[in-house]
Amino acid sequence: MTEDTGFDFATATGLEVLRHIESTQSRRPNIGELLGLSIDSLAEGRVVMSLEPRELFANQLGTMHGGISATLLDSVMGCAVHSSLPAATSYTTLELKVNYIRPVPTTGGRLTGIGNVVHLGRRSATAEGRITNEEGKLVAHATTTCMVFPVSA
Amino acid sequence: MTEDTGFDFATATGLEVLRHIESTQSRRPNIGELLGLSIDSLAEGRVVMSLEPRELFANQLGTMHGGISATLLDSVMGCAVHSSLPAATSYTTLELKVNYIRPVPTTGGRLTGIGNVVHLGRRSATAEGRITNEEGKLVAHATTTCMVFPVSA
Amino acid sequence: MTEDTGFDFATATGLEVLRHIESTQSRRPNIGELLGLSIDSLAEGRVVMSLEPRELFANQLGTMHGGISATLLDSVMGCAVHSSLPAATSYTTLELKVNYIRPVPTTGGRLTGIGNVVHLGRRSATAEGRITNEEGKLVAHATTTCMVFPVSA
Amino acid sequence: MTEDTGFDFATATGLEVLRHIESTQSRRPNIGELLGLSIDSLAEGRVVMSLEPRELFANQLGTMHGGISATLLDSVMGCAVHSSLPAATSYTTLELKVNYIRPVPTTGGRLTGIGNVVHLGRRSATAEGRITNEEGKLVAHATTTCMVFPVSA
Repeated sequence: MTEDTGFDFATATGLEVLRHIESTQSRRPNIGELLGLSIDSLAEGRVVMSLEPRELFANQLGTMHGGISATLLDSVMGCAVHSSLPAATSYTTLELKVNYIRPVPTTGGRLTGIGNVVHLGRRSATAEGRITNEEGKLVAHATTTCMVFPVSA
Repeated sequence: MTEDTGFDFATATGLEVLRHIESTQSRRPNIGELLGLSIDSLAEGRVVMSLEPRELFANQLGTMHGGISATLLDSVMGCAVHSSLPAATSYTTLELKVNYIRPVPTTGGRLTGIGNVVHLGRRSATAEGRITNEEGKLVAHATTTCMVFPVSA
Repeated sequence: MTEDTGFDFATATGLEVLRHIESTQSRRPNIGELLGLSIDSLAEGRVVMSLEPRELFANQLGTMHGGISATLLDSVMGCAVHSSLPAATSYTTLELKVNYIRPVPTTGGRLTGIGNVVHLGRRSATAEGRITNEEGKLVAHATTTCMVFPVSA
Repeated sequence: MTEDTGFDFATATGLEVLRHIESTQSRRPNIGELLGLSIDSLAEGRVVMSLEPRELFANQLGTMHGGISATLLDSVMGCAVHSSLPAATSYTTLELKVNYIRPVPTTGGRLTGIGNVVHLGRRSATAEGRITNEEGKLVAHATTTCMVFPVSA
């Protein structure tokens, strides 16, 4: 992330880093582009993102592939953990567990994913996430376990 | 799937359905296209698929997003369950749990996912999956729980 | 459960069955006795139980074995699902996932487990659970997936 | 563990520590006594334990409570990780996920749990476990994620 001059990653909190990445135009290509993922809200320990199902998200049965829900949930939960980290600290996702509640049509409306930190410790963190459809119905829910560690400047 | 004339879905086993879908040209757009997912091997209770990481699969840290691994694992495990079903039977994935073992560079080589059925019962099934990189190193592993149910013709 | 005359299991809801079992003196020996598990609250979709850690609950490191927390969480989540079932319906637990947040001393105070239904469908249900210690600190949290099915009288 | 004179925990590998604990008479009370858990085999990265279901292991439905299977699986998987650790290294279990395959009668025969390490890294480890009954049928299977860290002498 050295291309972003004028922002000091070494002293920024996780939330500051996420807000910087969201606002800067110099972002590298990433899965957000591939899936049309938008960041709707960034707060300490809570992140909301959404996406619109597409025909190309379908599984062989014609409904949305569970991997898309897993990607949205992994994103909001990972960012929720990231957003709660102090400066000079990073994380990595150790595991992700998703419960699928109802099938999602690829022609249905926008899906909203919400990630909340459950526990932030010095060496590990957990978060939970939910996806709802436009009618507010629960589509999937998840938990994740992350490892938290210091990074040197 | 009514566009596929000459194939009788009602009397075909899960493995026959999967082989038919693989061979036919009339497939609808799906996530396989989006991610460049190829089916390498289909056998009863065991499915192998692979994909090549791309720049657009990156997370904000520049490594491959965990959602891509989750999608590959969900695909091979779900298809492994599907491939073991008798005729007039379908399934739906209830939950998916992924362990991430090592980060995957988006410029690294092809990833291979293998799904194997652990248990097939009348009403539920479980499977396990693994992803290895080109050096044969374990990248992620997973388990899934599916519901199995009869379908009427 | 045929020994309990005067109670009609066939027409009782899950909550009525649980309240009957709780009140009756004819209970068979079960894990509740082994662990000193008490039912603190039974409501539709929400169950609270507690237990006091004992020396015999220790693992080799001298703290409480994770299996005790798993047992408490499985109990409150399974009963939360049970308590939300209509009459002539039963359930079985397909999977349980527990996150361990902090070690529990075997000489510490009482642990309280709370289970809440997240989703109740016709064929499956999910629930989440939390354990807190006497200071109200989170000790572990969990999710579960259950299969729901009709039972004939 | 300072009561065990003549054994140097600081320089012993995980497997040496486990073998020492198994052989010594000075063990403190623990869950192994409560459940009648026996260690059948200890090897680097692979541990086998077994137990006999009892009437007091029952849930309200009269079959063995899922918490007993979770305890056996947590034990064999945790010890499998422990058995693979170098000296001056410890671990803690972050999460446990159990799939229940078939109900276990409390009057059925002995259950055998096998835990195998899947991945051992410098900071985390994963393992998988299986329980089979006396007929060799799969009763439950599981995975776990552990944190691995250095301990000072």
